[in-house]
Amino acid sequence: MITQKLQHKIDFKTKPLGSLGQLETIALQIGTIQNSLTPQLTNPTIIVFAGDHGITDEGVSPFPKDVTWQMVMNFVQGGAAINTFCKQNNIYLKVVDAGVDYNFAAELPIIHAKIAYGTQNILKAPALTIDQSEKAMSQGALIVQNAVREGCNCIGFGEMGIGNTSIASMLMHIITKIPLENCVGAGTGMVGDKLIHKLTVLQKAVNLHNPSLPIEILSTFGGLEIAMMCGAYIEAYKQNMVILVDGFITTATLLVAQLFEPNITNNCIFSHVSNEQGHAQLLNFLQAKPLLSLGLRLGEGTGAAIAYPIIQSAITFLNNMSSFDDANVSNLE
Amino acid sequence: MITQKLQHKIDFKTKPLGSLGQLETIALQIGTIQNSLTPQLTNPTIIVFAGDHGITDEGVSPFPKDVTWQMVMNFVQGGAAINTFCKQNNIYLKVVDAGVDYNFAAELPIIHAKIAYGTQNILKAPALTIDQSEKAMSQGALIVQNAVREGCNCIGFGEMGIGNTSIASMLMHIITKIPLENCVGAGTGMVGDKLIHKLTVLQKAVNLHNPSLPIEILSTFGGLEIAMMCGAYIEAYKQNMVILVDGFITTATLLVAQLFEPNITNNCIFSHVSNEQGHAQLLNFLQAKPLLSLGLRLGEGTGAAIAYPIIQSAITFLNNMSSFDDANVSNLE
Repeated sequence: MITQKLQHKIDFKTKPLGSLGQLETIALQIGTIQNSLTPQLTNPTIIVFAGDHGITDEGVSPFPKDVTWQMVMNFVQGGAAINTFCKQNNIYLKVVDAGVDYNFAAELPIIHAKIAYGTQNILKAPALTIDQSEKAMSQGALIVQNAVREGCNCIGFGEMGIGNTSIASMLMHIITKIPLENCVGAGTGMVGDKLIHKLTVLQKAVNLHNPSLPIEILSTFGGLEIAMMCGAYIEAYKQNMVILVDGFITTATLLVAQLFEPNITNNCIFSHVSNEQGHAQLLNFLQAKPLLSLGLRLGEGTGAAIAYPIIQSAITFLNNMSSFDDANVSNLE
Repeated sequence: MITQKLQHKIDFKTKPLGSLGQLETIALQIGTIQNSLTPQLTNPTIIVFAGDHGITDEGVSPFPKDVTWQMVMNFVQGGAAINTFCKQNNIYLKVVDAGVDYNFAAELPIIHAKIAYGTQNILKAPALTIDQSEKAMSQGALIVQNAVREGCNCIGFGEMGIGNTSIASMLMHIITKIPLENCVGAGTGMVGDKLIHKLTVLQKAVNLHNPSLPIEILSTFGGLEIAMMCGAYIEAYKQNMVILVDGFITTATLLVAQLFEPNITNNCIFSHVSNEQGHAQLLNFLQAKPLLSLGLRLGEGTGAAIAYPIIQSAITFLNNMSSFDDANVSNLE
């Protein structure tokens, strides 16, 4: 019902029918989510979850694991990519220590939600215990509830965790059944022989485990930032928020969240298709049409932050453009 | 030299090499244009040129010709798509009567630069005289000079003119030699038999004329908004501005401007590929990589206005992100 009314409103704006393309789809989607002909995005927020991964012991990333905590400090100091894009687009940024292998000073402006100092090496044990996964998911839900209390109705997630493209690749493979080699990519810079090594390690890890329940899949591969984000996704859906999906790792995490909430993608806007091999296929699996294709592969929620003004454009035309009648413009003869 | 320094600056930002994709290309391009490691976009402005076309007598658009002046009034009242996007993104909007078949009241906040009350029907005569084309180009140059005086160094152009996708299709065909049927599309809504009719009319028009010099090509097909925009493009290039290219008609006009200034695309950022058939091939001909692909086909400069925050993101990361050294983050092992 609201969808029909929205479509009528969109169709009688002073423009050729359908001529705002994907902006019209987004306007329709957000209006439907909010059950409103005049939807609004309030206190847009991006939450970056950080965590470490035992699998980095196997040399699956060109960057040392210390970069995880160093980048959290970079977020705190405002110097990372996500800081600059959030500042540009008036997006509130929160950084969460979900499981970084480092002791952050208590007074730092981050959300201290550490479940453990990183995960187990998947070649030796499941990354997380079921209990750790559940705790992480609960924390993620709490963090989203707090954002809602602050007036946020539009949320995006980002991640920082050296090694986490490996985890995302395995989650994608396990859930979609797409061959592992199609799910594994360069990450922050694994090419040539290094990429073959990464694939070999991940194949070994996948062969070692046989999880079936969603919580088992999550626990087997981890990581803590992914489990916490998974809980956050589910809560954002329950709170009927507009959810901005970023890149490869955040989309793989959505895949896990979808095992818990099958209709979650109704609330999702896919901000971009990244250059990480596998992301395009993952979006295809989700029947998602991303807004941007800029060759980004940085993570941190940067694609969501960069795409946000496009989403605002969809709201803006819906709320502020004149109709043919308003403007005394002749419609089709 | 500056290009190498810019590339070095980009490469040592706290992110995996190349991971900001097309934003890095844009940052490099704008820094090179401005010969600066800290480029700035100031007073971004979109100028919408409006004009009428004699060829509308042949039924090449589903909308009546009166929509041109009605939409100019819609711009003045702030209700059109381009108004809402410019307002959203803090872009200064100017509307120019280049040749609308209507008498606008002198006190309206538009630039009164009317050369004539529309163009001739190309099936009967060249759209413009050489003198009209030259006058329109000079006016376009003056309008850009005024924007520069107001502190603008980043400019985009839009257009309003019922019938002007027809003109753009013919210009594209004549200059690129791409078959006319690949250059002609639905415009504001010519599909099925109507599209065949449009193509038939345009083929007849193309067969009637044989222009060779750039100014002859411009005069043969018109229109006044296109000729004035052509002069504006050329002046923007001479003034070393960053030039935002919008959709099909504005890109076809750039093709004409390129006949006068072969290196003009060095200063151009292609904001989007539109849904108008022909635009993708036109961009391909120009070896242009558009930022957005959102299925837009509205004109007015809307693609440029919607893409502008992405361009700001490129500037923002270049100027504000920390380097590995600044942030004490470990670079590649």
